Amino acid sequence: MREVYLDNAATTCCSPEAAQLALELMTQDYGNPSSLHSKGLAAQLRLDAARRQLADALGCTSDEVLFTSGGTESNNLAILGAVEARRRGGKTVVAMSTAHSSVRAPLAYLEKSGYTVRGIDPLDDGSTDPDALADAVDGDTVLLCLELVGSEVGAVTPVAELARRVRRRFPGVFIHCDAVQGLGKLPFAASRLGVDSLSVSAHKIQAPKGCGALYLKKGSRILPRLYGGAQEHGLRAGTENVPLSCAFGLAAQRRTERLEADLAHVEALREYFVNIARGIPGICINSPRSATPYIQNLSVPGYRSETMLHFLAQRGVYVSSGSACSRGAASHVLRAMRLAPERVDSAIRVSFSPQSTAGEIDLFFEALREGINTIARSKP
Amino acid sequence: MREVYLDNAATTCCSPEAAQLALELMTQDYGNPSSLHSKGLAAQLRLDAARRQLADALGCTSDEVLFTSGGTESNNLAILGAVEARRRGGKTVVAMSTAHSSVRAPLAYLEKSGYTVRGIDPLDDGSTDPDALADAVDGDTVLLCLELVGSEVGAVTPVAELARRVRRRFPGVFIHCDAVQGLGKLPFAASRLGVDSLSVSAHKIQAPKGCGALYLKKGSRILPRLYGGAQEHGLRAGTENVPLSCAFGLAAQRRTERLEADLAHVEALREYFVNIARGIPGICINSPRSATPYIQNLSVPGYRSETMLHFLAQRGVYVSSGSACSRGAASHVLRAMRLAPERVDSAIRVSFSPQSTAGEIDLFFEALREGINTIARSKP
Repeated sequence: MREVYLDNAATTCCSPEAAQLALELMTQDYGNPSSLHSKGLAAQLRLDAARRQLADALGCTSDEVLFTSGGTESNNLAILGAVEARRRGGKTVVAMSTAHSSVRAPLAYLEKSGYTVRGIDPLDDGSTDPDALADAVDGDTVLLCLELVGSEVGAVTPVAELARRVRRRFPGVFIHCDAVQGLGKLPFAASRLGVDSLSVSAHKIQAPKGCGALYLKKGSRILPRLYGGAQEHGLRAGTENVPLSCAFGLAAQRRTERLEADLAHVEALREYFVNIARGIPGICINSPRSATPYIQNLSVPGYRSETMLHFLAQRGVYVSSGSACSRGAASHVLRAMRLAPERVDSAIRVSFSPQSTAGEIDLFFEALREGINTIARSKP
Repeated sequence: MREVYLDNAATTCCSPEAAQLALELMTQDYGNPSSLHSKGLAAQLRLDAARRQLADALGCTSDEVLFTSGGTESNNLAILGAVEARRRGGKTVVAMSTAHSSVRAPLAYLEKSGYTVRGIDPLDDGSTDPDALADAVDGDTVLLCLELVGSEVGAVTPVAELARRVRRRFPGVFIHCDAVQGLGKLPFAASRLGVDSLSVSAHKIQAPKGCGALYLKKGSRILPRLYGGAQEHGLRAGTENVPLSCAFGLAAQRRTERLEADLAHVEALREYFVNIARGIPGICINSPRSATPYIQNLSVPGYRSETMLHFLAQRGVYVSSGSACSRGAASHVLRAMRLAPERVDSAIRVSFSPQSTAGEIDLFFEALREGINTIARSKP
């Protein structure tokens, strides 16, 4: 059975090139970068090169890149680290209610610790409401959390514009951007977004799971979450994950080199996808027109997501109901968009990689049509 | 030039078998374990198997194993997570002053937050002082941190005996054990040590960097440090690092299978090593007789560690001056042993792997002798 993997927002298949590089660094240049001998130095030089590749991909300098164990750690480090460094600052955090759980959960922790978290809903079409976000920031705001690309419907937030608006009135607010679903998918330069920090993850761009990075603008201060050795400027202790960081650097470089060409390809796929979807009665598209073409969210009201997902998986077609990290719980994003419950309960997220093809989209819709004809409609 | 890598306490060369498994999981069973479809399930099953392998190696049950990004994260999670879960408990922490920086640094953070940290020095020969440790625990003690095997001189702490003594008088104390240098090197069963938590790291046992685990005894409560998805029983959010966790599970199984045979081999190496060392005038052995044979610490007073290290590295011999994470700072361990400054400043740590050979020891001493004859003695 041919596999049709259209769940690339959950995780991607690591490129053979990146995996091979990781393997090489596990078994050959395997030194500990903190070791003083030349074997350690060799590993340090490999890590330095990876940091430069990632800095180039992010549009910043090498010393603004911290390697972490993934997007979740990067978001936690930025959010909790920024707030802890500003204990005497404001007590309000402004964030998008559609944020990923790795942003919402540390914010919920802050809420329990006495902070007020103001969650801003998207517009009805799922796109970000920049006015509501900008207006929510006030003199008591210590942190603003933005999401460059939404993980469920793919909404793109005008981060640079928002940061400018907010900084004009409140220059001291720490602005964090979760760009986990943005890296390699839409062009941006961290240093030009006007944010203090920005999270990215390796396994979303065909590098291995277990690695991420945080852009931290020179001069922007946070406190660490992991204490130990002085690695990563003292902001992230622990022996550096040289193999995966190097694989991440390489994958980031490759994706950035091909970003525009990939984007044009995936734009075309999205058009193809939407045209077919529109021809199937009952299907609603949940992603705004302005969403990244890499993520398309649709609903087939009457067919519960989980049932349809399993039906599709039996045919080798892999998609999801929302963010993998929420494991099938009703989507907080679609609810924040005020969609009807039957639309929320039947949502399917299709997410592309640069290697996705129109043929795979055909197979997806073939299986989806079969599902619609086979599965008993759930009671409304 | 033949490489003689005797810095295995800093990091090890990943076994080809473990590296190949990681590669397979990056490029084949690459699903996200949190995904609901069968590709996600396949990854989940691989991760479950790795957790069982690690549980077997640690002597505990699968649901007592949490995967982390490494030893540093495991120590931070246990220490800060246990104290945060006991905010209304005692305000004193008892620890070994010889602990690794990934234990001492979170303790220093607690000290700044108002806790009292009681650091207990070793005996003069570098071995643990169980009486001093047991006596330091009192009714205000919330946490006791032990190190199964010291990272610099290899001292072995009688953890089970200490835990028993402490629990008899203060059953409520949370006992954490850093076993990063113990796993695969000396036989133990986490569940029989009587501790609440125990840290291990993959890259110290021929698995890749960037992965670790925490044994957390069933019923022992800690709070998470990373918030997000519900992975690892909600105690460690973030997409699971399936490739490295599986490589870790495999390496732990292999090392455990061969533990006794490896230990006998490395015991013999240690004897060989010590006999040669004793024949060279001026060399002092800093490791206690009771130390693990995997780590031997010696000094050549008059020859600064860093100078000698570089000399040896130029001859392809890789050793260290102490813990890699301290990057050449004067050893807090040797100072806690009250060694003379010239002995502290000239310390060299030699650390074996099961693949180390007597021939490598010969090459080490050949290069060391050459160093002694070549390098100008530093002024006392």
